[in-house]
Parts: sequence; C-alpha cells; structure tokens
Amino acid sequence: MTLDIGVLGYRFMGKAHANALARLPMFFPDAPDVNRHVLIGRNETALESAADQLGFSHTATEWADVLSDIDVLYNLGPNHVHVEPSIAALEAGVSVFCEKPLAPTLSAAKRMAEAARESNAIAGIAFNYRYLPAVQYARQRIMSGDLGEIHHVRARYLQDWLVDPDAPWSWRLSEEMAGSGSLGDLGAHSIDLARFLLGDAGQIDRVSGQLRTFVDERPVDTEGEQTRPVTVDDAYSAQVTFASGAMGTFEASRFATGHENDNTIEINGSAGSLRFSLERLNELELLEPGDRGFQTIMITDPDDPYIDHWWPPGHTIGWEHTFVHENYEFLKSVQNNTGYTPSFADGLAVQRVLDAIEESDERGEWIEIG
Amino acid sequence: MTLDIGVLGYRFMGKAHANALARLPMFFPDAPDVNRHVLIGRNETALESAADQLGFSHTATEWADVLSDIDVLYNLGPNHVHVEPSIAALEAGVSVFCEKPLAPTLSAAKRMAEAARESNAIAGIAFNYRYLPAVQYARQRIMSGDLGEIHHVRARYLQDWLVDPDAPWSWRLSEEMAGSGSLGDLGAHSIDLARFLLGDAGQIDRVSGQLRTFVDERPVDTEGEQTRPVTVDDAYSAQVTFASGAMGTFEASRFATGHENDNTIEINGSAGSLRFSLERLNELELLEPGDRGFQTIMITDPDDPYIDHWWPPGHTIGWEHTFVHENYEFLKSVQNNTGYTPSFADGLAVQRVLDAIEESDERGEWIEIG
Amino acid sequence: MTLDIGVLGYRFMGKAHANALARLPMFFPDAPDVNRHVLIGRNETALESAADQLGFSHTATEWADVLSDIDVLYNLGPNHVHVEPSIAALEAGVSVFCEKPLAPTLSAAKRMAEAARESNAIAGIAFNYRYLPAVQYARQRIMSGDLGEIHHVRARYLQDWLVDPDAPWSWRLSEEMAGSGSLGDLGAHSIDLARFLLGDAGQIDRVSGQLRTFVDERPVDTEGEQTRPVTVDDAYSAQVTFASGAMGTFEASRFATGHENDNTIEINGSAGSLRFSLERLNELELLEPGDRGFQTIMITDPDDPYIDHWWPPGHTIGWEHTFVHENYEFLKSVQNNTGYTPSFADGLAVQRVLDAIEESDERGEWIEIG
Amino acid sequence: MTLDIGVLGYRFMGKAHANALARLPMFFPDAPDVNRHVLIGRNETALESAADQLGFSHTATEWADVLSDIDVLYNLGPNHVHVEPSIAALEAGVSVFCEKPLAPTLSAAKRMAEAARESNAIAGIAFNYRYLPAVQYARQRIMSGDLGEIHHVRARYLQDWLVDPDAPWSWRLSEEMAGSGSLGDLGAHSIDLARFLLGDAGQIDRVSGQLRTFVDERPVDTEGEQTRPVTVDDAYSAQVTFASGAMGTFEASRFATGHENDNTIEINGSAGSLRFSLERLNELELLEPGDRGFQTIMITDPDDPYIDHWWPPGHTIGWEHTFVHENYEFLKSVQNNTGYTPSFADGLAVQRVLDAIEESDERGEWIEIG
Repeated sequence: MTLDIGVLGYRFMGKAHANALARLPMFFPDAPDVNRHVLIGRNETALESAADQLGFSHTATEWADVLSDIDVLYNLGPNHVHVEPSIAALEAGVSVFCEKPLAPTLSAAKRMAEAARESNAIAGIAFNYRYLPAVQYARQRIMSGDLGEIHHVRARYLQDWLVDPDAPWSWRLSEEMAGSGSLGDLGAHSIDLARFLLGDAGQIDRVSGQLRTFVDERPVDTEGEQTRPVTVDDAYSAQVTFASGAMGTFEASRFATGHENDNTIEINGSAGSLRFSLERLNELELLEPGDRGFQTIMITDPDDPYIDHWWPPGHTIGWEHTFVHENYEFLKSVQNNTGYTPSFADGLAVQRVLDAIEESDERGEWIEIG
Repeated sequence: MTLDIGVLGYRFMGKAHANALARLPMFFPDAPDVNRHVLIGRNETALESAADQLGFSHTATEWADVLSDIDVLYNLGPNHVHVEPSIAALEAGVSVFCEKPLAPTLSAAKRMAEAARESNAIAGIAFNYRYLPAVQYARQRIMSGDLGEIHHVRARYLQDWLVDPDAPWSWRLSEEMAGSGSLGDLGAHSIDLARFLLGDAGQIDRVSGQLRTFVDERPVDTEGEQTRPVTVDDAYSAQVTFASGAMGTFEASRFATGHENDNTIEINGSAGSLRFSLERLNELELLEPGDRGFQTIMITDPDDPYIDHWWPPGHTIGWEHTFVHENYEFLKSVQNNTGYTPSFADGLAVQRVLDAIEESDERGEWIEIG
Repeated sequence: MTLDIGVLGYRFMGKAHANALARLPMFFPDAPDVNRHVLIGRNETALESAADQLGFSHTATEWADVLSDIDVLYNLGPNHVHVEPSIAALEAGVSVFCEKPLAPTLSAAKRMAEAARESNAIAGIAFNYRYLPAVQYARQRIMSGDLGEIHHVRARYLQDWLVDPDAPWSWRLSEEMAGSGSLGDLGAHSIDLARFLLGDAGQIDRVSGQLRTFVDERPVDTEGEQTRPVTVDDAYSAQVTFASGAMGTFEASRFATGHENDNTIEINGSAGSLRFSLERLNELELLEPGDRGFQTIMITDPDDPYIDHWWPPGHTIGWEHTFVHENYEFLKSVQNNTGYTPSFADGLAVQRVLDAIEESDERGEWIEIG
Repeated sequence: MTLDIGVLGYRFMGKAHANALARLPMFFPDAPDVNRHVLIGRNETALESAADQLGFSHTATEWADVLSDIDVLYNLGPNHVHVEPSIAALEAGVSVFCEKPLAPTLSAAKRMAEAARESNAIAGIAFNYRYLPAVQYARQRIMSGDLGEIHHVRARYLQDWLVDPDAPWSWRLSEEMAGSGSLGDLGAHSIDLARFLLGDAGQIDRVSGQLRTFVDERPVDTEGEQTRPVTVDDAYSAQVTFASGAMGTFEASRFATGHENDNTIEINGSAGSLRFSLERLNELELLEPGDRGFQTIMITDPDDPYIDHWWPPGHTIGWEHTFVHENYEFLKSVQNNTGYTPSFADGLAVQRVLDAIEESDERGEWIEIG
C-alpha cells in the first residue's frame, strides 16, 4: 500500500515535512510507502515552484478539490486554516496531520477534536519535540520512577526575532489568523512537552497567566498600508498547578535578546532532576539517584530512541530529524489504523491550557481547568 | 575613631560577618577601625566558644544590656528577632545592620523602617549579593542604557536541602519565627537583586504568586516531640509587572534537586542581555550591542568593582567576599554618617512584594502594590 | 547533464554520502543532477540490500568493471582500497571523491596526488568538517585578520569506543588496511582543520609525535581465530611548529573515556581567539577585539555559510549536513570542471604530517617536513 | 607554642600568605598559633607600609639577620632568591616554606633538596593547588581505583597577560631571575598537579618539549633604558610518558588570548574520567562507572576536603582559600615535626621535568628522566 499525501502549506513547515517524507525510505525502510501527491496553496506560481523543489507531482489551490485523491492531509497552514480542512478531511475519512497549536480558539479546537473522535481516520497533531531522542529518553527516566515524585516543572521557550520594532508584520501577529502569539506558537510546545514528560502526572489543574505585547504595530510592505496592528502577545508567562501537586512555571517570548530558538525544560523530582535545551538537542542533563551533579549526556547511542536509524555515537542529528521521527510514527499509525499520539485530544488538552492562560490574564485571577 | 560592634547571632551569619570585620584592615585599609566588642546570644556556653573563635572580647545574653556600649548592632538573629532589638537600637542612636528579610511580617517591617527614618543612626539591610563585583558590573551596564529598554527579568533561587522528608525541622520552617520560607529567605534576595539591577525601572507594580509546602511536618530531636509542623512555603513562584512595563518571573525552592545555592537572574533588554549565577559568582554572561552571542566574562579585572582590593585577573573570590564589601560600605556610612543603601526602606520595599505574593497566593488573584 | 555516480563502500560512509546525494535536489536546487548509478562492494547479498535502501540502480563487485559507466567514483572503502581504484579512475578520466586519510602510506598518497595532477578529472578528498558552517565562519574571521597574528593552535579529537579491551577487532586496527589508527582516522581531520582555518599560515614545518597502543590484541568472531593483533595506534599526540611561527598541539584517542566524537580546536591570536567542538557543531565560541570573554554564538543565521538552504535561526543542523555541503561543492566542481579543495594535494599535505608524526615517534626526535 | 614567622616577599605572594595566616584562628582553631613576626624585603618604605597592612610587627632588609628570631621562613621572593635563604634557614634549623618553582635551575634545586634532607626542620614547597577541595576529591577518586587504569593526562595553564607587546618587562621575564617563563611559573603547577593526582603512577619517565618566545624585548620605565630582553619562554608545550604507561600532554602560555588564569587538567581512565578548571575552582567534572556523561559537581559539601571549616553547600570559596589550607597543613607539620608534602623532594622532582623539557627543546629529541 502506498499512501497518497496531500500537503497544505509549502513554506517552512511544508519543507520540513516534505524533507521528512523524502528521507523515510533510506532511514526507516519499514515506513509505509508514501507518494507526495499534491501540494496545496493559494499562490499558483509559488506553489508550482515549491512542488517542483519538494517533489510533489501535483498542485491544487482548493483543498476541498483533492480530498478524494489522498489518504492523508498534512495541514500546515496558518492556525486559522487548521479548522475547516481538517474537519472536512476527517469527515471524508482522510487522515489528518495538523501543525500546532490545534486551532486559533478553544471552540474551534473542540470541534476538531470532536471530528477526530467521530472519524475512523487518524488525526495527529505535530508536536514534533516529543520525537527528540533526548526527550523520549527523559520521559523514560521519569516514567521509570527513578527521579521520584516530581515537584517542579520549569519550561521556557525564548526567541528574539521581534525585538527590533521594525521587524515586519506577519500572520503570526494577527489574533484572527494565529489565535495567539508566543503563547500558541511557543507555549503550546512547552505545555505539550510537560504533559508528555510527566505522563498522567502532567495534567494541569489551574493556571495563572500574564500576556504582554511590547510593540503594537509593525510595518507591512503591502500597498496602501504602512503598518498593521499586532493583536497577539509578544511574550507570556504562567504559573500552574499540576494534578499531582507539582508546581510549574512557563514562559515564552519573541523579545528575549540573545535567544534564537531556546526551548528549555527542567524537571526536579524527589530523587533526581533533568534539563533539556533545544539549542543543544543531542544532549540531556540528568541527575540520577547517587549522582552529585547533573550528567551532561549525549543521547546519540544506538540504544537511544531512533538513533540506530542514523549514525554512530557522537554523530549528532539536527532539528529536522524530529519531523522524520514523527512522520514515521504517524504514517505507521495510518497504515495500521492504530491510535496516534499526540492526538487531536492532546491538542485540545493543550488548547484548554492556552485558553485558560489567556482568560487568567484578562481576569487577573487563577483559572481552574475543567 | 574606632567603632564598637555588637553582633546578635553567632552561627552562620555571625561567622560570615565576623570574618568580614576581621579582613577589612588587610584588604580595605581605609575602612573604619572596628572593635569586635560583644557577641550576643542565648546559650552561654556556645556563645563563649563562638566569641573566642570569632574574636569578640565580650559576650551578652541580653541585647538590651549592651546597647549603650556599642556604636553598631549587627542583627543576625532569626527573622522574628529582627524587630525589637533593631528598633530599640535605632531609638538609642545605635546604627543597625540587619540581615534579610527585614522582618517576618509587613507590619513589623513598617515599624522598623519608621524607626530608621526617625533615627539619626544608620540602618542597613544586608542584601549582600548587591556587593558581588559581577552584579555591580551588571548594574553599570544596565544603567548605561547599553542594553536598551528592559523587557524581561527572570530570577530564581534554587536549593535542595529540604527534598529529603527526614531533613530536620528548624526555625526557618516556622511562620512565627521566619515569616515565610523560600519566599523570605531566597525570594527576598531575588527581588532585591532585580530592584538593584534595574534601578528606578525595578519598581514592581503588581504580582501574582503561588506558594507550596511539599512536606508539612519534620522531625525534631527535642525531647517529648517527634515532629513539628512546617508552617512556611518550601517553594514559591511569582509573576510580576514592573512600573516600566517589563515582565518578571520569580521562583525559589528548597526542593530543587541538584541545585545547592543557585541564585540566578537573567535580564533581556531591547539591545542586550545578561545572566548571572551565584554558583559561578566570578562570571557574568553579557550580550552587548554588536555581539552575536553571550560573552562569558570573568569579572576579576582590576577595573572591576572591588577587585583592586584582592587578587590579579582570574584569581577568583568566594561567596564570603560579598560580606567584606558590604561591611566596608556600611561601616564607612556609619563613620561618615551618610546614607547607606540598601536601607531599611529598601528592605520594606522588598517586604511589600513578599507580602503581596503571599496575599496573591491566598486570594488567587493579582495584587497591586500600593 | 546528469552525473552518473558510482560509490565504492556501502556502510557508514556509503550511507552518509548516499543521503547527501539524495538531499541535494530539495535543498540545493542548483546542484548538478545526479544518478545514483552503481554501488560497489564485495558481499553481494549485503550489497543488494544496501543498494535498495540507498537508492542505487545497479551493483557491482568489481570496481574496474564500472569505470566506463560512471562520471564520478566515490571511494569510501577502507584506506588501503583508496589507492588503486582512485588512480585507475583518474586515469580513465573519472572524477574521484575519496574519503580520508588519502592513503595508508605516504608513498601511496604521493602516487594518488600524482594521478590527480595528471588527470583532467576532478579529485577531491572528503574532509567534511571543512563544510561545517561554524568552521567556515571561523575561517572567515581568521582570514579577515581580526584575530591578529595566530600564536596557538590546540586541536584534539577524542573518542572512547576502544576503551573496553573486549571491543572487537576491525580493519581500522590493522596497519596494513588502515595505515594508522587514531592518527590517520582522527588526527587527519585535526590537521586538515588547522590547515583550512589558518590558510597559508597553516603550513606545518616540523613535528614531534608520540603514538601509543594500549591494547594490542582484540577478539574476532571469525572461525578459527580468537583474537587478532592491533597494529595501529590507539592514541597519538603531537607538537608542531607552523611556518608562521605559531605553536600547535594535537592529540587524538580512542581511549578518552567520556568523549564520543569530540573534535575540538582552539586558536589564539594576538587580537582574538576562537573555539569549536564537533559535539556542539552549531556553535562557535569567539572572542573578538573589544570582547572581554568568549561569545557563544549559534551559527544558524541566514547569512552564515549554507544556512539559507536549511532552516530559520536556532533550528540546528546535524553531523550529516557536512556531507550535503561537500557533495554540493564537489559535484559543482565536477560539472564545471573547476578545481576542488580539499584536493588530493591537500590530502597529500596532511599525509606528510601524519607520516612525519609516525617517523618522529619511531626516532624520538623532531622531524622537518620537506 | 607560638611559631614566629618571617616572610621574605611582600607583594602578591606575601599578601596571599599573610592573609592565610590571619585567617587560621577563626576557621582552623586547631592550627598552631602564629606570630607574624618579621617581613623581609629591600625597599624600606614599601616594606614598612606592607608590614603595617599585612600585620607584621617587624621588618628587615637582610634575611640573614633574622634567621635566629624565627621558627619558619616563608621564601616568597623571585625564583633566584629561593636558593640561598632557604638553604641557610634549613642549616640554621629554621623551617622553610618556599614558593614554586623550587629554583631557577636544576642544580640549585638539587642543593635545596639536599639541604632539606639534611635538616631537622621542615621544608615545604607551596604548590597551593594541591589544596583545592576539588583537587583533593579528584585524587581520592583516582586513588580509589574507581576510574580504572589511567591512560591520558591533559594539562594546560593558559594566561594572556603578555599578548600585548607593550606589556612591561618584569623579573618573571628574565632567565637569570626566574629560570624559565611559562614553563616554571605555570608548567610547574601542571606537572605537580599530575604527580599529585596520579600518586605513584604520576612519575614521568620521558618528555619531549617545545618552548617559544613570541616577543623578545619589552619596555621598562627605568631611567636610561627603553627595553629589556625577554630571556624566557612565553609558552611551552610538552608530551610525556608516565612510568605507568599513560600518555600526557602539557601546555602553558601567557599569550592565550581570552584566558586569564585557566589552569585545567583532564584525566581519562579505563573506567572513568575527570576534569578540573581553576577558573571554576568549586566544581569538578567527574564521570564514574555507570555514568553516561560527566557530572558537574559542586565540591562544597561538608564531607568534602576542608569544606566543614567554611560555609554551607553551594557557598563557594575563592582562590585564596588554597593558601589557608596549605598554611594550615604546613604549620601543623612544623609544630608536630612531621613530614610535609609537597616537600623539597617534590619540588626537585618537578624541576627535573622542567629541566628535561628545556633540554628536549634545545636538543630536538626526547629526554629520559634519570
């Protein structure tokens, strides 16, 4: 069986997933065969060029037109485009792999999760950082109980690409199109990572949040306009209480000068601790019982998650490899018609937290997550 | 003129300050002459032994008895002992150097600050980390404007000495004696550090806080008791808004496995950033305009604050040196009868934030600081 | 024009180069079209399977049989196989891309360089670490003169895969097949890196070396044998003098417990310094005039070498990307029939240093490099 | 019994040792009582001022005049002054604590060691870095056998205070006064550290060395002269073979831009490894059996060497504390008339290595150490 794939979105995420699909045969020979069938977008010229470069045999400007031709829809568009195509695809029995955050609003996310629940097709959300070998190894260490009872989660995702007030406006800065800013784009990753690493103990019960927009309009080069308003947050912070009793602190910013893509998480348990940073994604800092300090470990051994598919110890992988791993797992789920995690339900669970953080910011008080 | 010093407290802080006093003549020859006159405490045997070791000529078990014999009272007792002796000393015209936090409660702190305001004597609070060369250098860089407008403050103070549930009870775990736990002991340092580094921009307008006690009773070896209740926080977190518009996140814990005395702060400005960690106190990480990454700088050059008193470049100082610097500055203020900062007013300002964090935790909402 | 490629070797290096070839169209659209025509090896079964996975249309067990079918021969076999096929290919006008070190002996290397000189085809040696963005950026900084006159080069390449005395024998441990051990395998990289980074100033005039074999026989699982002798070095060190007057120290080991693939180089100039480590290959530590400490820089900006082909700032690449870059450059040279560096002459220059280090070890004295 | 101390030298080392003596009573109450009796130097004005600041009751311009007044002579003068006063003191039954390296020449060092052997007084050499808690802890780990058989020692001591060609001339740059440059000043520390950490296995059998002077004259501000020649090395490197079979590489420089006082050593054993850097002297990086990476450990626990005398965990000490520890141990040896290490014999053993490195540099060949 060859899976026919349609991909909506041909820029950053389109390239990341197309690359993943292209690399599966050489590195994951047991992955399903895939056919990069159709690339979907609005600008025909750019689309043709992208399809050529990314190896798609067809293009389409209307997603609805191609649902009957494909087995899987990759929904990689701006957040506001996640909703209708994903629901329609699932209703048509087409599996959906959707970028994060699930939706721009909680109500849309609920509709998407509902559609996934009612469909026989597979619906996955592309929280790719779950597929870092170091992150999976970290989860194993926590799940084993060796780190003891978890007391603290400390996650932040820092970037600095908006610190220049003349950095241009984009859809990511529009509430209508993106839902939120650093919160949905970066915070969604942090919250999912905490949920993944802690397993059942990662359920968040209540949150207190703060959002901030430092620069409230930015230049555009569209004719007739000088600037457009920034209607999302440049940065957020949050405090949370986990169901297990652990405390969590979360933060993200696009104004953190000196940080390009600094997605870090630290977890302190009663018997051990660990730290991870995306900018050094082949490493994990781990303190196990009996250790006096954090070990700095290269997670590049053949026994480490996914590493036997790649290179010998110490020969590092890059950011893009997370996409290969998640595509492999997602497509196997599609082929075998088995459940995939993170699912739309996971995406919805994250969205509930995002929504509660926004609500907390507006109301100035803690919000319980129902 | 020789200043006669009385020191209340002869354990950890007593030793730290006695050492500082002893080292002044060799390293700060222009410091006032001091006489380690009297050591004050309750246990006569321990007190005699400590006075002998720490170089005090007299001992006293009642602080009130010696106020007339001394020029300066060092109040290094448990937090609940900060109040009455400090006020009495100031009313008697005796200068007071008081450990942090200023008091166990906001109302007590207000009384102390009032006493300081009405006294001609000098009242200082021993926020010793202001006197780290790296911290003073960091403040200079921020005050110069080179880092631009400050957007983010990120401070945490992590320890792990309570993670063992069998770690014994002490006065630091009693609300009555300590006021609060990690919040007052560690958080007070973080908040003062932010205020010091940012100057006027460091005023905190509103806070949202969370306190947590993970282990609520601990063993004692006193006869007739097995355990005593822990009535303070093991950990806290807080989000704040500065008057300048910057966002801040604060956290401290005594349950952060793998961190012994990890007092860190990071500040992101529109044109630069810096990071500091107490466990590497001779270093500062600094990103200045034009830099592509954080510089890791040894703050051990002769031009760096206080370093010309010590050793050549790269010959590091230790934690205790902060006490030498602050004693030098405080005693010069006493000698010259000039204002000292951090003053009791600074201590009160920090206490207002501590109090607001506690109130926020209780009420589950943001608290404005009047 | 499509280049027909024949690849000799289908294990580690075969996979690394096949992957590079497969990725060019998506990430380097202006690269020549290539046809993975034939995979060459001895074990037919393993070869078929590898050809299938790595995307080759044909296989061959005799390299001589296919020279007429290909435009380029990738010679990725054990070192002793580098010699004859490369020479024959060059004589047949087939371009050759040969893994490092150039040859097991200096005399063989001379023959290969001679063949390259006399051929109209392109001959390149696969010193892939020249193609790290951080390394190319480092070279730019040195070549600009901003770091001043270079005084020190400090290079080491540490691994630990042989520290277990029961680690099995392989061809890499045979003098006949490999020429040398850590010296040729790891030291060749260090020496080439120094030559590349320093440019003309990187010429090495004299060396003093030390080689050591810690474990002199190792188990094999071949029938009829229990162990085979280790006839190469487990570790080497060397001191060198550069023509420019700079001093260099070099070292490699397969017994450096705790180091998996730790290829580091530090260069100190009169006006600045830099440091690089392969285990953190997206980073460069750089001290420029005016800096007080090393900046830790992510070399992942669009302006950095090759990065515009990949991902946004902070989205790291991996070890394998060096192969994509070098394949791109090598194949462009083949297509345009222009000179490629590192050439066989570069490979020979490195080999002269390797040989001099061995001779120095044998004779116990410094060796001038003619 | 109170020990009367005479100190020859009142600058950098004079201050470091005077401070150590002054701190003993408070932190090492069981240390012998000492009387800072006489400070010895040539410039009477500077001497008076120094004696006042450093707490000496007398001064002398001729060391010979005071030998009968003292129990211990601290010989902290330039290296060429180490010889005669130390020998005379030992012959007079006065214990001697001499700064490193032992002497400017091997023959002088032999005479000093001979004098020590024949004297009933105690002779110690001030290799202070043996008294770092992290170094002592490291030695314990190696001596326990837990790191297995040692294969590699990698030591370097990098400074940059001479990289400016206009940095002024000093006695440290004169062969007559200092013996050698970076070799004796910095290399002596590295070699002693290797010997200390490895114990019996640390005996060096043969060496190959390289010395270099990058700037061969430097300005003086003495009248009638513009510059003086630099007659010692600015940098050295060495390869060594230990009696145990381990390999060692050593290097020091005063031209290593970006390094202020960077004394590092790494040791790789068959079962573990460790790393230490003087610029982070409270830390040790340790890889023990079972670990996957180096632990970064704060050596500041009460069980760690000397730490119970100082502060709680994580409250770091500084460079100067090494002097307190070594003074404590040396003076106890004097009081109890027991052997002290490092002794003059240790100083001589180091000097043999220094001398062999110089001879190797001159002759261009390996030198066996008799």
